[in-house]
Parts: sequence; C-alpha cells; structure tokens
Amino acid sequence: MNSIQLVPPGGVQEHRPWPHELLSGVWSEQLEHLTKGRGYRLIAERRFASLVGADAFLIDGGEQVKTVAQLEALVAQLIESGLTRDHVVVGLGGGAATDLIGFAAATVFRGVDWVAVPTTVLAAVDASIGGKTAVNLALGKNLLGAFHQPLGVIVDRKFWDSLPPLEWRSGAVEIFKSGLLRPELMSALMACETAQDASEHAVAAAQLKLDVVSADPQEKGLRAALNLGHTLGHALESQGAGRLRHGEAVAIGLSAVLRIGHPQADELIERLNRWGLPTRVPEWADFEGLVHLMRRDKKSNAQGLRVVLPQASSSCVLVEGFEPERLLA
Amino acid sequence: MNSIQLVPPGGVQEHRPWPHELLSGVWSEQLEHLTKGRGYRLIAERRFASLVGADAFLIDGGEQVKTVAQLEALVAQLIESGLTRDHVVVGLGGGAATDLIGFAAATVFRGVDWVAVPTTVLAAVDASIGGKTAVNLALGKNLLGAFHQPLGVIVDRKFWDSLPPLEWRSGAVEIFKSGLLRPELMSALMACETAQDASEHAVAAAQLKLDVVSADPQEKGLRAALNLGHTLGHALESQGAGRLRHGEAVAIGLSAVLRIGHPQADELIERLNRWGLPTRVPEWADFEGLVHLMRRDKKSNAQGLRVVLPQASSSCVLVEGFEPERLLA
Repeated sequence: MNSIQLVPPGGVQEHRPWPHELLSGVWSEQLEHLTKGRGYRLIAERRFASLVGADAFLIDGGEQVKTVAQLEALVAQLIESGLTRDHVVVGLGGGAATDLIGFAAATVFRGVDWVAVPTTVLAAVDASIGGKTAVNLALGKNLLGAFHQPLGVIVDRKFWDSLPPLEWRSGAVEIFKSGLLRPELMSALMACETAQDASEHAVAAAQLKLDVVSADPQEKGLRAALNLGHTLGHALESQGAGRLRHGEAVAIGLSAVLRIGHPQADELIERLNRWGLPTRVPEWADFEGLVHLMRRDKKSNAQGLRVVLPQASSSCVLVEGFEPERLLA
Repeated sequence: MNSIQLVPPGGVQEHRPWPHELLSGVWSEQLEHLTKGRGYRLIAERRFASLVGADAFLIDGGEQVKTVAQLEALVAQLIESGLTRDHVVVGLGGGAATDLIGFAAATVFRGVDWVAVPTTVLAAVDASIGGKTAVNLALGKNLLGAFHQPLGVIVDRKFWDSLPPLEWRSGAVEIFKSGLLRPELMSALMACETAQDASEHAVAAAQLKLDVVSADPQEKGLRAALNLGHTLGHALESQGAGRLRHGEAVAIGLSAVLRIGHPQADELIERLNRWGLPTRVPEWADFEGLVHLMRRDKKSNAQGLRVVLPQASSSCVLVEGFEPERLLA
C-alpha cells in the first residue's frame, strides 16, 4: 500500500488560470455576458419550462436521463435545429441534466462550447464545476463521458427556492467534503445547524473545487482529493438503485473514510447526522456486492482501490492498493 | 464572401511539438515501445484475427461499424475486461475501425490513452493522424465524436499487402490532397502512373497532416486546409449510400474545387483519372439533396459554406459564405 500527500495542510496554494468562469446573479444576464452575442441553444429541465422561454429544448431531470439513447436524441435535436460549431450549448438543470448536456456539447461535431446553469445546490458546488460530463452505462455510473470545460458556470439562487429538504442535504454533503480540505470552511460549517444554513457556503465550496480543478484539469493527481468519500458512495448509490440519493450515499462514504483514523471523526460525523444525513452503511446493503462494485470503480486497479483519506488539519492522502473491505469495517 | 490565406506558398513552416508519434515498422515491437510496459487492450478488425493473437477483441470494419450501439457495446466489453485508466486501448484496423475505437478510448472513464495501428493506406495517411474520432448518426457522418490524440500511430506496411485496388485508390486520393499543399510532394505524384505507386509517398502525406494538426489540434483554423475536397465529398458519400467509397467521393470533391479557378486544374484532375478515380459528380446524384447535405455540414453556417480552395503554388484559402451550388457547376 503506497500513499502520497495530495493536499498540504495549508490547502491548495497554487492558483493557475481558472478553466472557466464562476458567475452568480441573474442567469439570463450572465449568459449574455458569457456568450457575447454568439448564437446559443438552451436545453433545460422540463420543470423550469415556465422560466426559460419557448425556444428552449426540454429534457427530464434526474439520473435516469443520463443514457446513451438520450445523448443520441439530444445531439440529433441540436443538429436538426441548425446548430453550428460557432453556437454555444447552454444546459440548465440539476447535476444529472448538466452531465448529459455537457457530454452532448463535448461530442456533437466533436465538441462545441457550453455553459452550465446549475439549478440545485449540489450541481452548483459539484457537478457543474470542472468540466466532468458523462452518461451512465448498465455497468455503472459515469462510465462514458468526457472532460469538457464549460465557458462558465452561472449560479442563480432563485432556482434553489423550490428545493425539497433532500436537495439541501445533498448539497450540504459536498460543501462538507470541501470543508475537509479547507479549515476555515469547516470551522464555519461546524456552526451550521441545518443543511440549508450550510448552503450559504456554496460559493466557497465551488471555489475550492475550481482551485483544485484548475491545478489538475485532467484528474491526474491533485483532483483525486475531490473524490473523498465517493468510492463507497458510488457503490452504495448503485446498489441502492434509488434507495439512496447521491448526497446521502456520499455522506456514508465520507463517514467511512473519516473513521479510518481521523482524530475528529466523531465530531465531524455528528455534524452530518445533525443535518439529517445517514452516516452508516444501511442494513439492506450487500457487503460482497459493494466490494465488487468498488473494485470495478474507474479509480481501482488490479492491486486494489485508489482511495482518498482525510487527515487532521485538512490535508488528505491518496492511498493506492487499498483493500475495499476496510471501508466497510 | 470573405477569404483568409490558410497555407502560405512555402507550405506549413511552423513546427510545434507533434501531438503524437508517427512510427513505422513491425507493429507489435513499436507497440511495446509506445506502451512502455503499461497494460493494454487490443481491439482489431475481425479480418486480422490470425495476426493479432487470441487476447484481442474483434470488431467488424467498414463505415457501418461506426454506430452509437457499437460504441456502447465496445466500451462495456472494455470495462468488463477489467480496464483501468492506466491501460492503453490499441485500435488495429481501417479508418472506420480506428474512428470507433478512438472514440471509445476518448469516452470510457472520460478518456484513456490509445494507440492507432492503421491497416489501410487511407487510414495511415488520414484517418489515424490527428486525433479525430467519431461515430455516425442517422443525420450524417462523424456527427458524434471527440478530438483525442493517440499516444502514437504505427504504420506497418505488411497490412497493405492484401488491399484490393479500390483501397489503393482511396489512399492515393488523400496523398494527392496533401500534394496540393506541398509542391515537392505533388511533383513526385505527377510521376506516379498508378495509385499503388502513389502509396510510396504515404509517409510524406502523413507527415504533412501531422505538421498541420500539431499547429492546430482543435481545428480552429489552419487545419481546415485538410478539409480540401471534403465538403462535396462527404455529401456525395452520404447520398451515394454505398455507391461511392470515401476516397472516390473526395476525388470528385477535389476535382470540383480545382475547377474553381486553379490554373493547373486539367492536368491535376487528369492524374486522378489515370489512377482510376472518378472526377465528375455521378449521374445518379440529386443536386438539390447535395446542397442540403452540404448546408448541414458542420463547417457550414447560416451565411453559407466554409470551403477550402486550392491555389497555384500549393497555397490554399478558406472561403466563408460560399454558395454550395458553385461546387456543382
């Protein structure tokens, strides 16, 4: 088992040019700023039909939209509408919708520019930042995709008004993950009584992700830190087949890596509980199946898993050759 | 109608680092050199089954393999075989096979490294060089794809031994296209009596393409020069639905742009005829349909086509707002 230090105790110090802009405010105004008069095609989740105008293409939201068939249909629709390489594709929706739309933009005509307008806390702090786009295969999540940096990400908090409690909790988990990499953020989060309170720190979390991503756009090293809690999280989400949302599964995954020797594990995990998040592997889980799923994760190899472990003082280490069973102890 | 000079009379002078290696020789030895002990998965066209060993995945060749369904099946097979991000995907076959395999490599786990082993003259001088990968949609060719540079391209001429005459001709067309951009190459080609003779200059043609591609990997400007003859060519190939091979369609497309004012048009077109290639739009073609297809080409926009025209002395110009009808005059 080898390990390398990923994030030094002081956090990410290096500031390279950001791979894309992070804007907040009225989305339609910011979109004009980003597209600078170029034509665009707006693709939006159906539930926002009344907010986006009659020209928008509407798609379903949620993980079930991320299929190869939906990709093919969306790309055909874009081409039929007269899309050219000079157009910008705009994706407005939650993380699943922007994953699909971003992948369509990455592959139509071998790639056109795009802009993400995330409509959930989770998408604003995680899915839309950093250019990861993908659809799912029967074998697992996000197995077919591309790194395709958007021109920019526009966060308009008016879309959050109607979010159900579960969505606030899902977003809070990713903000919490960022806190494990940035001490001042975690200090602030430890004072938040609810997941909705934590969402006030969404921009700080998105900024941390952009810092990491701009230092490592292709996920060659540093960016692995953002995978904190996701190895077990993805396996649980997959096995749960709808019983756990992404954020809940990652909360359990984060708790699992914290329990592997983090000195403030109890206090940190308690905060997730207070926000209403699960922190233990559910009763229904099949341990053998989870191990199998984790071994098939794209971060695994023949020698075992590649897992990120959080350390005291907000550093973290990347551990190679990790036995997946240890995450279930 | 605006035009900009693409390639100056002296040819491409700028030499940036090549985006990938171009190797010739025994493919299996060169593959060891490129992969440097990393594990790899070999995907080969079925007709080479006896040459590639029992571990290879076999796929069909030809344009009909470039479908979204084949992509999904191939990626699933790679993942089921235990592929990790550290592996290299190796694609051995003609241009259609390497287009599909390269796109699978570009999208599985959001991109893994790959190596192309082109087995036709056409693939060696064109399809495998420069990182273009794609599958087709019902709406047209190569509409879904990615730019994904291979680690290297390995040309092993032993695969050419069994090529039918049509394949030699197809390869010769792309070598001829390169000749329109490099005077010394065209001088040599004008002395070639047959398409097979022209294939002796395949490496020079591949090198020209690499020079252009390395100066413009994302096809933002200069690389458009490589599109010489392809606007009409693609439309003819699509409308022909099998009646014309890619090389034949491009030969007609090249003849069409030469006829638009090139001083040596007659002499150059005559050379294509001598090699057994068609140089006139066939009787069966539907002009209105061709215009419609050209307008839908990814290089077109509302103002007309973006077409590359060859000039005397091996320069060429990119013309914007071109009326597609002029290619059919």
